[in-house]
Amino acid sequence: MSGLFVAFEGGEGAGKSTQIRLLAASLRAAGQEVVETREPGGTPLGTELRRLVLDPDGHVTPRAEALLYAADRAHHVDTVVTPGLARGAVVITDRYVDSTLAYQGAGRGLGAGAHAVTVWATGGLTPALTVLLDVDPVAGLARAGARARPDRLESASLEFHRAVRAAFLALAAAEPARYLVLDATRAADALAGDVLAAVRARLRG
Amino acid sequence: MSGLFVAFEGGEGAGKSTQIRLLAASLRAAGQEVVETREPGGTPLGTELRRLVLDPDGHVTPRAEALLYAADRAHHVDTVVTPGLARGAVVITDRYVDSTLAYQGAGRGLGAGAHAVTVWATGGLTPALTVLLDVDPVAGLARAGARARPDRLESASLEFHRAVRAAFLALAAAEPARYLVLDATRAADALAGDVLAAVRARLRG
Repeated sequence: MSGLFVAFEGGEGAGKSTQIRLLAASLRAAGQEVVETREPGGTPLGTELRRLVLDPDGHVTPRAEALLYAADRAHHVDTVVTPGLARGAVVITDRYVDSTLAYQGAGRGLGAGAHAVTVWATGGLTPALTVLLDVDPVAGLARAGARARPDRLESASLEFHRAVRAAFLALAAAEPARYLVLDATRAADALAGDVLAAVRARLRG
Repeated sequence: MSGLFVAFEGGEGAGKSTQIRLLAASLRAAGQEVVETREPGGTPLGTELRRLVLDPDGHVTPRAEALLYAADRAHHVDTVVTPGLARGAVVITDRYVDSTLAYQGAGRGLGAGAHAVTVWATGGLTPALTVLLDVDPVAGLARAGARARPDRLESASLEFHRAVRAAFLALAAAEPARYLVLDATRAADALAGDVLAAVRARLRG
């Protein structure tokens, strides 16, 4: 028996947390074991690393940041994702490899080296479904701004967030069978219906 | 003007700290700027990462550990080593790339992937001189045991430390021009004389 690995991707304020909560609730109501996790931060080690990377007063060089995300990912895959899938659970992660590629690669020009590091960190484990909640950065940042003090990633320039959005859309276009791209400005319950349908299709398939 | 990059390598209890202190004191007495640093831990970020990796109660998977060392290294190279060399300083580091290769690679079977990650982290920066303080693990661990509570690396098995020692010696044999291999059981002042002579030859050369 093996489970289903689902990743949610998107920029700041795209509504990933809401959609993950709704999907997990629907699946659990149908008796499905669900593991909700996130990168960075899905493990005790990841929580510590998330604190280091997102510290608004900290200074982490771009290559170091990419490697911290990779360390979190390796630990997360080995201790949370792979064991959950082996039990037959649906493992839902808030961000995965494509966030690294979009934020560190496209956004900050680290390129192919960062990609190779990421592949090594995951051992090649890829989601069966990646949900991209796509939103214009101006709208997304306005939503994120309604929350608490912005962390370092959210404080980056609008140009950076536009490059990230374009990178996510390019990744989705390159792998249409794996990606479900949704307009994140639609109503949350309508989005949740589309996500659940895509997950159920893959659980049957 | 460019400085000189010197790394000290060796197992637990080899006396790296003592030799670094003696070398730095001799060079400073001759008017040379010296930067003393370490991996992991040469930067504020590195200090945090060192705490995570060495926590005796922690659990870090092998790939995650290799990536944390690489993150520290990237940050350390960019913020400490490269600026120091640009000023003309002798930059002395307690452990560098070869420790990763010996501990994570040879010791724990991560192999070529870990090597590629390390090269990416350094941007290819290699010491002009690497001093290997070679000691039998039984003698080295006895010396290290005279210090405070052993950290997680020091608690690993004797077989592991033997594999690490063999890996260091193999690295030195592959690059004899870069390496100075010394018997760490010799008297500290005799060792310090050999190290200083090798550094002075490279400062002249």
